[in-house]
Amino acid sequence: MAIITVIGSGVMGSAMSFPARANGHTVRLVGTMLDRDIISHAREAGFHLTLDRTLPDGVEFFQLEELDEALDGAHLIIGGVSSFGVEWFANDILPRLPSGVPVLSVTKGMILNTDGSLTSYPAYYTSKSPDGDFCAVGGPCTSYELADLDHSHVGFCGRSMDSLQMMKELLGTSFYHINLTTDVEGLEFAVAIKNVYALAVTLAVGLSLKLDDTLHYNSQAAIFTQSVREMRRLLALFGHDDENIIFGAGDLYVTVYGGRTRKLGSLLGMGHDFKSAMKELDGITLESVVIATRVSEALLALIEKEKASRLDFPLLLHVYDIITKTVKVDVPWKDFG
Amino acid sequence: MAIITVIGSGVMGSAMSFPARANGHTVRLVGTMLDRDIISHAREAGFHLTLDRTLPDGVEFFQLEELDEALDGAHLIIGGVSSFGVEWFANDILPRLPSGVPVLSVTKGMILNTDGSLTSYPAYYTSKSPDGDFCAVGGPCTSYELADLDHSHVGFCGRSMDSLQMMKELLGTSFYHINLTTDVEGLEFAVAIKNVYALAVTLAVGLSLKLDDTLHYNSQAAIFTQSVREMRRLLALFGHDDENIIFGAGDLYVTVYGGRTRKLGSLLGMGHDFKSAMKELDGITLESVVIATRVSEALLALIEKEKASRLDFPLLLHVYDIITKTVKVDVPWKDFG
Repeated sequence: MAIITVIGSGVMGSAMSFPARANGHTVRLVGTMLDRDIISHAREAGFHLTLDRTLPDGVEFFQLEELDEALDGAHLIIGGVSSFGVEWFANDILPRLPSGVPVLSVTKGMILNTDGSLTSYPAYYTSKSPDGDFCAVGGPCTSYELADLDHSHVGFCGRSMDSLQMMKELLGTSFYHINLTTDVEGLEFAVAIKNVYALAVTLAVGLSLKLDDTLHYNSQAAIFTQSVREMRRLLALFGHDDENIIFGAGDLYVTVYGGRTRKLGSLLGMGHDFKSAMKELDGITLESVVIATRVSEALLALIEKEKASRLDFPLLLHVYDIITKTVKVDVPWKDFG
Repeated sequence: MAIITVIGSGVMGSAMSFPARANGHTVRLVGTMLDRDIISHAREAGFHLTLDRTLPDGVEFFQLEELDEALDGAHLIIGGVSSFGVEWFANDILPRLPSGVPVLSVTKGMILNTDGSLTSYPAYYTSKSPDGDFCAVGGPCTSYELADLDHSHVGFCGRSMDSLQMMKELLGTSFYHINLTTDVEGLEFAVAIKNVYALAVTLAVGLSLKLDDTLHYNSQAAIFTQSVREMRRLLALFGHDDENIIFGAGDLYVTVYGGRTRKLGSLLGMGHDFKSAMKELDGITLESVVIATRVSEALLALIEKEKASRLDFPLLLHVYDIITKTVKVDVPWKDFG
């Protein structure tokens, strides 16, 4: 059995304890400075405050100041921070990790560089720590349902197939299914761009609720179809293998049904502008919105350089205008195609 | 304004009267011999028995023996039969149609030839009536929601872009959006294969309902992801443009939420075998099951000839075994990828 240290006890990092413990590994869950309450509460009876579930028996809990103890003898490190914690993880945590131990990041999103290009987190971590072995998880898997042991199928990506194979052996279970790929940038890009389109599809949820308080699916499917069309164009434009559309479409499917993104899209579709919708969501910045904005700005940089046409991305650009210009929803149906 | 004659007053043929009447055209709805009650009831107050909605004002109703009257002066004919009525339409109706009037078919599915190849209905009709101008509708659009004026986005396919353009002008509205393509076989194939995968995704609906009576989406998304993967492989194997995955994925999305296919998949996922599930559905043969079976058998013919590998289609072959061998659901999660 192996020792797996998870750094960052948010919902997804913590949910990884379910497959890890199912395989009998030692799991050490380390909270960041933002997770103090989660860790101290979990220490009492194993209940995780934000995941809203009891963690598996045997998970060990550590506050950040106990990090070195938690890392002692670790075979695998899981990076469990949100995208807002990536810089901190790179600058404060990477230097403290034992050398030779691979890192699996569950963080969603990509970094937007000043020239408009996008970089995956594994590539960013590698730039900070060139000897490190950084892998990442992509694909349709919400933390809550992973914790409920629902069948989940994800992709692990990294440069070293040996490391990926080792991670699959440690974490693959009868309910957590893993495919492996060395196409890190392609997979991370595909699952990042779906954030724009999850907002787009859920606009139709709000539009139909506003209309007659029921759910309609033709309009959701029309936007879903256009989303797959634009995602394929984005993959081609940014030079990624079109096979990655599989993960983009699958991840879009689950995100449309997931929590706060759906709520935001529905509020917008029902007639709220972005500011008022965010107020309804208690003003908390959504990771999905930040990622959607970054992807849009990477596209806009290419349009600016005349390497892409606005006409190919009516849906993405409308969502971007909704977020950044407080434009009200007016789905550009006629421009689809 | 044009005269549009719809032959076959099932749910989709009849729903086409909504965009047609919205544009002010004369709409003549002709029942087949199976639609006598629908037509005689609709004549009284415009209410459609199986669509369960009142049709737009001004639709004119005809029984089959009044077909010639209904065809007089028509500018467009819509073929509104189900896939079970295709042979009858080809043999009994095509010879009676006025020459030079294009036909738009709303029928879903393809014909399975004895050599294991698949033929679209427009191509089949052309083989029967070589001078005819046959087009078809594909893409995510359920009749009920079209009748509710939900935004729907479909593809019209045919050999003649002029005819397609004319049909788009006649039928395109503020809620019914139309893309045009001359890739008839590609579009029809993409929307036919989604029938197998709609059953597959809804197996996960049943599995999670059985487990804890709630809906889980990780497992649905895992099957959705594998479905997109296998659909891309099928498109490549049968020689179709991979761009058609857009319609396959979009149509899959809406079908997962549509009526009887979802009910059948859910029953299977909850533990019924195929026979017992069909009994629950009153034993009525589902069009989607017939199409799923045809697509599977076309693939099996290629596997038989060693032109395809079973290993690439674990999901399709499992659904086929469920339908034809009364095998119980045992999703091959480990074979995905």
